[in-house]
Amino acid sequence: MELKDHLRQQAGRTKAASKELARCLPEVKTRALNAMADLLESQASFILAENEKDLEAGKAKGLASPLIERLTLNRKRISEMAMGIRDVAVLPDPVGEMIKMVRRPNGMWVGQMRVPIGVIGIIYESRPNVTADVAALCVKSGNGVILRGGSEAICSNQAIARLLQEAGVKAGLPPHVITLIETTDRQAIFELLQLDEAIDLIIPRGGEGLIRTVVEQSKIPVMKHDKGICHTFVDESADLKTAEEVCLNAKVQRPATCNAMETLLVHQGIAPAFLPKMVSRFQEAGVEVRGCPRTRELLPGISIAREGDWTTEYLDLILSVKIVSHFDEALSHISTYGSCHSEAIITRDHAHAMRFVNEVDASAVFVNASTRLNDGCQFGLGAEMGISTSRIHARGPMGLEALTCAKFIVFGDGQVRD
Amino acid sequence: MELKDHLRQQAGRTKAASKELARCLPEVKTRALNAMADLLESQASFILAENEKDLEAGKAKGLASPLIERLTLNRKRISEMAMGIRDVAVLPDPVGEMIKMVRRPNGMWVGQMRVPIGVIGIIYESRPNVTADVAALCVKSGNGVILRGGSEAICSNQAIARLLQEAGVKAGLPPHVITLIETTDRQAIFELLQLDEAIDLIIPRGGEGLIRTVVEQSKIPVMKHDKGICHTFVDESADLKTAEEVCLNAKVQRPATCNAMETLLVHQGIAPAFLPKMVSRFQEAGVEVRGCPRTRELLPGISIAREGDWTTEYLDLILSVKIVSHFDEALSHISTYGSCHSEAIITRDHAHAMRFVNEVDASAVFVNASTRLNDGCQFGLGAEMGISTSRIHARGPMGLEALTCAKFIVFGDGQVRD
Repeated sequence: MELKDHLRQQAGRTKAASKELARCLPEVKTRALNAMADLLESQASFILAENEKDLEAGKAKGLASPLIERLTLNRKRISEMAMGIRDVAVLPDPVGEMIKMVRRPNGMWVGQMRVPIGVIGIIYESRPNVTADVAALCVKSGNGVILRGGSEAICSNQAIARLLQEAGVKAGLPPHVITLIETTDRQAIFELLQLDEAIDLIIPRGGEGLIRTVVEQSKIPVMKHDKGICHTFVDESADLKTAEEVCLNAKVQRPATCNAMETLLVHQGIAPAFLPKMVSRFQEAGVEVRGCPRTRELLPGISIAREGDWTTEYLDLILSVKIVSHFDEALSHISTYGSCHSEAIITRDHAHAMRFVNEVDASAVFVNASTRLNDGCQFGLGAEMGISTSRIHARGPMGLEALTCAKFIVFGDGQVRD
Repeated sequence: MELKDHLRQQAGRTKAASKELARCLPEVKTRALNAMADLLESQASFILAENEKDLEAGKAKGLASPLIERLTLNRKRISEMAMGIRDVAVLPDPVGEMIKMVRRPNGMWVGQMRVPIGVIGIIYESRPNVTADVAALCVKSGNGVILRGGSEAICSNQAIARLLQEAGVKAGLPPHVITLIETTDRQAIFELLQLDEAIDLIIPRGGEGLIRTVVEQSKIPVMKHDKGICHTFVDESADLKTAEEVCLNAKVQRPATCNAMETLLVHQGIAPAFLPKMVSRFQEAGVEVRGCPRTRELLPGISIAREGDWTTEYLDLILSVKIVSHFDEALSHISTYGSCHSEAIITRDHAHAMRFVNEVDASAVFVNASTRLNDGCQFGLGAEMGISTSRIHARGPMGLEALTCAKFIVFGDGQVRD
């Protein structure tokens, strides 16, 4: 069968299964998720053997060692994967929640009910644990899922997906709720993006190139998980100790993530008191600091931040620093160079805190807290599907609720339209 | 300047203006909307003169008389347009609403704030009042709007848009918040759909062909407003009087709308008591009834419903009728032939009512009420942007809230990530 027809058939089966899954009782889904976790752990040797094939192929292909590291599974990682599924299993079920039920003048009750989106297609790169994470979130939220992982992880992903499917069906889920695309042919991505009769939402998790391609080619709605050029603005009234701890955390706690700080903006009134100590703490932590001309007047030893620095997501221990003359200049810099991901202000000025929260356009805006906290678990949503940088449906961490939509429901007793 | 560059420039200006609009106080938007309504009324003669040009051109082109009728403005219609804007003006402002603010274990408050989506592109067909309606909804919800109306209404739309812009700017809105595409070149639609750096959401309001083209060509997220193949299922336990009144309303109150009933499903146990009287009431109201074989056994005089009838949106005084053997057959028919728009059950059985609400997949599901009630005003949302048949962001009537998205906001006092 041709690739296109094969994918259409697979997606159609998942669509049909998703309609059954949408009607499954919460306890069936919980039981299935726990069974999946158990089976991953009890079949760890099988997963590790399949993972070994990927690792051998990766080494033979000369994959860089950080990629090999991301690809590598061991018993601890498999247990973490299983624990992640169990964490999702115990979250409140979002499906069927009735919200905003009000009584209208004509006596009918109107409100909304959360329902699954349908079938979600996830296109992701090399870490095999993503296969288990996203499948668990989709099942819990009542969605069918079509997984297209990276070719380097194909054997690991197949092993994991097969176990999830097996455990799910045994526990009472309809078959085909979880579908892994088993070909590594890149053309499969383009074909999937055409199947808008079967797939309701595409979530690309990967680099800028992948996201751009998906947005351009897809007939299906896409939730972007794009890069983060995140700022922290230390206002004139900031508490110095708070500013130091929060900025250090935002930059160094895990620099390779999208919610790590890339640019530090400092009010000129506090720069002399704040920057020398802050920069030396960054340097102690191994951060390369690049400054604007005014920063370099204060700290002549540091290197120059060039125009390109303000638009770069370093994802590394590098930080650009700019001194601004006033609050509005900070807002304007963020509006010009930010990527609407995670933005923070450190201030004791209430009016500035409220203006920052109101006016800054980002998936999450922080007052006196680290941008690294832009995360589903930190926000109390439980596990997440990543951080959406789209401007519709959901911004920020996508938890279970963001994997549902709300239909209107009406309880009447004969109401008609005049 | 080339069309593409001209449109990019216009869209870029609207994007910039939308950032200012997002920060406008609610009272500025309210004042602007009221000023727009006043100016439309005081400049009615100008609008009518421009409308006359469209009507003459339409007649010269041989437009069908229903289209001419839709295109025609008069003082009453202009007043209604103005009243529509004033109705939007007094609705609660959705922007800035803070929701779900909770305190996390580490002491930070986390919640969400409703913010405008950005710039919304609306592609619509001939009725010129849509220009005023959608511009008002976008301004109230803090969004810039790019309007692309039908070519038959170009002079009317230009006149209306110019007055809205003029009144808005005088009342303190940034210029370029409302942009009307002044060319009637169809290529402009395709160019707009590429401008994802400036336009955040596309809403096509028109026929199936338009919607399909937009979904296929757009790089920008699209909210579909698709056709309605809507059912009413009269269950075995239905109250006969309720069933009659609701079904009659759903079919005849305004048959040309997307939420009108197209197929009536009747439980076999109630069919003999219900159908003869119901069908004669439909026939008195001028409805052509087409029945399945079992319906025709009961009522030999009516014509045959063929397979194609179950999938047709008549938008007219035609109705297909099917007798089903049990509740699940009704659900299965709706799942197979429905378009997920508006679906109703008439029943006195609580378990059936709850199963129908839970299991039927539609933008709105009704128990003992007419599908014609699937409407923003009826649901208490105020005016609406149409009825979304998309499966993400918003399903059903899109009121002001559906024209916003929610960003996360955090109030902390030094929280960092461990």
